[in-house]
Amino acid sequence: MRIIFLGTGSAMPSPRRSMPAVAIVRLGEVFLLDCGEGTQFRYRDEHLRYSRLRWLLISHLHGDHVLGLPGLLMSLQMSERTEPLEIVGPEGIREYVLANRRLLRTEFGYPLVFTELSGDGGVVYDGPEYVIEAGRLHHGVPTFGFAVAEKDRPGPFDVAAARALRVPEGPLWGQLQHLGHELVGVGDGLPGRVLAGDEARPGYRVAYVADTRPCANAAVLGRGADVLIHEATFAGDLLSEAKAKQHCTVTEAAQVGLSAGARRLVLTHFSSRYVDLGPLRREADEVFPGVELAADGLTISLGE
Amino acid sequence: MRIIFLGTGSAMPSPRRSMPAVAIVRLGEVFLLDCGEGTQFRYRDEHLRYSRLRWLLISHLHGDHVLGLPGLLMSLQMSERTEPLEIVGPEGIREYVLANRRLLRTEFGYPLVFTELSGDGGVVYDGPEYVIEAGRLHHGVPTFGFAVAEKDRPGPFDVAAARALRVPEGPLWGQLQHLGHELVGVGDGLPGRVLAGDEARPGYRVAYVADTRPCANAAVLGRGADVLIHEATFAGDLLSEAKAKQHCTVTEAAQVGLSAGARRLVLTHFSSRYVDLGPLRREADEVFPGVELAADGLTISLGE
Repeated sequence: MRIIFLGTGSAMPSPRRSMPAVAIVRLGEVFLLDCGEGTQFRYRDEHLRYSRLRWLLISHLHGDHVLGLPGLLMSLQMSERTEPLEIVGPEGIREYVLANRRLLRTEFGYPLVFTELSGDGGVVYDGPEYVIEAGRLHHGVPTFGFAVAEKDRPGPFDVAAARALRVPEGPLWGQLQHLGHELVGVGDGLPGRVLAGDEARPGYRVAYVADTRPCANAAVLGRGADVLIHEATFAGDLLSEAKAKQHCTVTEAAQVGLSAGARRLVLTHFSSRYVDLGPLRREADEVFPGVELAADGLTISLGE
Repeated sequence: MRIIFLGTGSAMPSPRRSMPAVAIVRLGEVFLLDCGEGTQFRYRDEHLRYSRLRWLLISHLHGDHVLGLPGLLMSLQMSERTEPLEIVGPEGIREYVLANRRLLRTEFGYPLVFTELSGDGGVVYDGPEYVIEAGRLHHGVPTFGFAVAEKDRPGPFDVAAARALRVPEGPLWGQLQHLGHELVGVGDGLPGRVLAGDEARPGYRVAYVADTRPCANAAVLGRGADVLIHEATFAGDLLSEAKAKQHCTVTEAAQVGLSAGARRLVLTHFSSRYVDLGPLRREADEVFPGVELAADGLTISLGE
């Protein structure tokens, strides 16, 4: 898994930071978290491929998080995409996309699959390899955070044992690793763990929380996360502005990371007023030692 | 007058060219011609001020020409603009802006003044200092080109004569220059031209033609223009593609410039397939010697 920060700014454009967007790349699939104006250019700059984009997870319908969506969808169309695209977001995301399609007289030759979130969120997708969860945040308009959680993976496959047993290399190896030799009917009488990767390795969990005041769901999404990405628009001295605009200070975001027990905490969505983030880093580090502050292009690799 | 090319690409984003937009700066006022995704960032990069933006002239409602509009309007709002903003474009421009405002739950604290064009176009604005004309182009969806034409300016003011006559420096000098001494009642018996700037200097005319097949209105807008900005999406060998997509080749654009009698011709809106524009320049130069090819950031100054 790779996490690539495409844009790390907030509502007011800054020459130093692109508009909010984060890409998670997992086994060739891309999950795009938010899509501010210009995200398609940043996506291209990071050499991500349009054909790999499977999930668009949109936190809320404020301009800085969605204005890049119509242009991205049009470029996918021009790239002759045919695979379906899953778009998840709060109620209204469907109307936003379809109204722009109609007003700009565009057609899309690939299916758009919408999931509109309501209430407190919940499990958006539960597939064989990973789960996507959504949790309602606290930002005035309906806003959701997301977690992409891999399911446990089977343990390492014992190649030497397989060769000793003359198991032919190919699809059978994968079946043995995922299902165990008893189900597959190879190596009768052997203990399961000789061939099957049955010492499960835990999958990774990445959570994305933007925009919000500190709230319980932010910690729920970030619980035990390998990486919790959390908005931190203001320094602590602007707490009253953070409250008024329903954002977090870096201290508040660090406290969420701490209470969630996240392994790594990466802050993003900084107000354009900050040029030197040193003071923000020091402030957050007092609460969550080792906290990281995102910049455009920051890439985090997990298990690669 | 200054013309600044903010974006010189076409529909498919290119790492070498931003999406279409051109700014004309005249006595502190900005006319923005088209507004593709990311135009607000380019506007800022060129150190143009939001408060100076008066006219948004939109050629047509294809994504690459308007997707930057909602974000720009939101940034104007965040910059606490109060002055009205004039938005001119084909029918549907008003609904596009207002639908996005509604869907993204934004308010604008400044008045938006819409002029929706229909039919063949015509005079959009006729003020004391300049005229804005629109002309229907040929691009499938309703599309208009524009000309910004300064009115003739009074001749130079005779400062020495004014001082000899003890005309007090101040507003009276301007009145004398623009109205003549007889109307103002100074320097009785003098020939008018001693003080009044009555040897008129012609104003500048800048025309913008995108997107279109070659058409009569393109030449009408560009007639005698000091600068004609014309789309030229393809090289001549892709004439059939230009016809199918209702664009121009560089040769066709150069022929329009020639038949219009434009003083300078600047081509823009190049397909993302072209990296080296040398062959396109040579092709156009055979028809319109001295033709210029725009790049992002190209700035043309008239009379400064």
